[in-house]
Amino acid sequence: MKPEPGLLMAAEIAEQPEVLARLLAARDEVSAVAGQVRRRRPRFVLLAARGTSDNAALYAKYLVENVLGLPAGLVSPSTITGYGARPDLTDVLWLAVSQSGGSPDLVESTRVARERGATTLAVTNAPESALARVAELHLDVLAGPELSVAATKTYTAQLLALWLFVRHWGGAPDADARHLPDLVGDCLAAPRSATQAAMLAEHLVEAPALVTTGRGYSYPTAREAALKLMETSYVAAQAFSGADLLHGPFALVQPGTPVLAVLADGVGARLLRPVVERLRAADADLMLVGPSSLGWSSPGSGRGGVVLALPEGLEESLAPLVQIPPLQEVARRLAVLRGNDPDRPRGLRKVTETV
Amino acid sequence: MKPEPGLLMAAEIAEQPEVLARLLAARDEVSAVAGQVRRRRPRFVLLAARGTSDNAALYAKYLVENVLGLPAGLVSPSTITGYGARPDLTDVLWLAVSQSGGSPDLVESTRVARERGATTLAVTNAPESALARVAELHLDVLAGPELSVAATKTYTAQLLALWLFVRHWGGAPDADARHLPDLVGDCLAAPRSATQAAMLAEHLVEAPALVTTGRGYSYPTAREAALKLMETSYVAAQAFSGADLLHGPFALVQPGTPVLAVLADGVGARLLRPVVERLRAADADLMLVGPSSLGWSSPGSGRGGVVLALPEGLEESLAPLVQIPPLQEVARRLAVLRGNDPDRPRGLRKVTETV
Repeated sequence: MKPEPGLLMAAEIAEQPEVLARLLAARDEVSAVAGQVRRRRPRFVLLAARGTSDNAALYAKYLVENVLGLPAGLVSPSTITGYGARPDLTDVLWLAVSQSGGSPDLVESTRVARERGATTLAVTNAPESALARVAELHLDVLAGPELSVAATKTYTAQLLALWLFVRHWGGAPDADARHLPDLVGDCLAAPRSATQAAMLAEHLVEAPALVTTGRGYSYPTAREAALKLMETSYVAAQAFSGADLLHGPFALVQPGTPVLAVLADGVGARLLRPVVERLRAADADLMLVGPSSLGWSSPGSGRGGVVLALPEGLEESLAPLVQIPPLQEVARRLAVLRGNDPDRPRGLRKVTETV
Repeated sequence: MKPEPGLLMAAEIAEQPEVLARLLAARDEVSAVAGQVRRRRPRFVLLAARGTSDNAALYAKYLVENVLGLPAGLVSPSTITGYGARPDLTDVLWLAVSQSGGSPDLVESTRVARERGATTLAVTNAPESALARVAELHLDVLAGPELSVAATKTYTAQLLALWLFVRHWGGAPDADARHLPDLVGDCLAAPRSATQAAMLAEHLVEAPALVTTGRGYSYPTAREAALKLMETSYVAAQAFSGADLLHGPFALVQPGTPVLAVLADGVGARLLRPVVERLRAADADLMLVGPSSLGWSSPGSGRGGVVLALPEGLEESLAPLVQIPPLQEVARRLAVLRGNDPDRPRGLRKVTETV
């Protein structure tokens, strides 16, 4: 019997509250690793990742810069694996993020980083993986086996592991995260949420292309939403930071172009406001994902309102954890509506090996 | 009388050999700035830019890592301008790249970077701009006034200024760049090149979406080509590093999907080879931009051959300077074929002000 399309992805999306609770219960282990890193006093952070994990790494970059006040950058592993660069990495924390811990370029570049003086930390869902072994330190995101090719629960687990790690490193409180499992559970289980996700998927069923946007902490969500839509539903989804969107790609937007804007209470929404206004003026098919309390609905026009309502009053740096699960659900539903199996996207394997 | 669409862009594309020659003649000034930076002994390089300049910044990141062996990262200015981060930037070179030098977020984040201990260098086409004034050091890319909204000659001028700067900082020879004006001139003027650009534009005239890809030094070209196509021709062009393409977005590729792969002799082409093979196997409408000598044509299939032939035997780090002009020309021609005016793309202004 052929399994129902997207069953694995549905189960793994639904499992997220449990995964987050498990990780919160293990936060002493995260704290211990954070303590080891803090004692090294790194001055720069380099983040190495691919695919979905790269979006988690981008999220970590905002955390490192804002919470720790340390400069950070995303690594192009090919400079090490391809061009043979051997940078001096004294005083650097090299943070490699990967679900499988198996991609050869990450393993090799992390090995070199360690040899070149970096403190190396791997954040994976696979403590026995080559990446976990080659790095000096390891954080297990404890998401359990993920069988759908489209990563869902490992992404939110990475976000929380990175949030806890950075907060503990910086000596900042972690109490705000306590309610996350409930909040994510509510987001997914509330009848209103399911209806909203279903309506959004229905609305996008014919869309060949889509733009997603966000600023600050919400920008990684815009990227991850675009990636899920590409992977599962084969929509040509393009993510831009709100600022970059205005520097060129805005020319793509014409009346009716679907644009998904991701918002959270705080700085990111304030920075995105002028972008949203330009999108409204261009008569884009604007869909907001964020707290209704922002009051950005556009009464009367029938366009530009909140299509996925998210919890209000959340610490902005935690918002990405509640933003993405309903968007994963939209991607899953859209794939099924389009006759695809989101558990087995064409052309992809679970562990991608790049050099 | 209404001017002919794309005349400004055509003139500015054609002006590139002259701009590059002017900059080469001024390389002692670049060398002097490089010497000042070298004496500070920066240990980490942060690059701040938006839009086309961000692609030049990405190119500089590869140069810094490969030529200087220093870790480097691209900055999200919003952590400083929005979230108020005040990172410790001792031992950091903060390199801001901008044509106009006018974007408020770059000006403000550069001001803060200088205050926080970074050596600040602005690379602009506007020595009197706010950005040039706020940074401690300045490099003028000497491209002359650029009137078309789509940046062309300022991009190649940025690439060459950054190449000269990094080489002189590292004490590496710069002789390889001497022939660039002639090479770029040949690329643009040869009848074969004009024919190839025209054929490629014609081939893409109905394409709603397109994927571009490259690895290493050629990846910034893939991004800049996608940006030009979006800005001028409103094609939903998505750029992915060859590695990232395999981690998810590959699901977008189906038989006939147009994919433009950018290649140069060297490491980038070697790393891209498995990606090109997967694209061929997926029966993508694969178009290669690179030296014919790579021998990657796909005889018989009618697909997957070199559509824009580039000079052979060029030092790989200089290849982006000859790769982009014919692609700018494709974007211009495609825009005109589609009835757009590439000099005045919808929704864009020459100086984009983001905060």
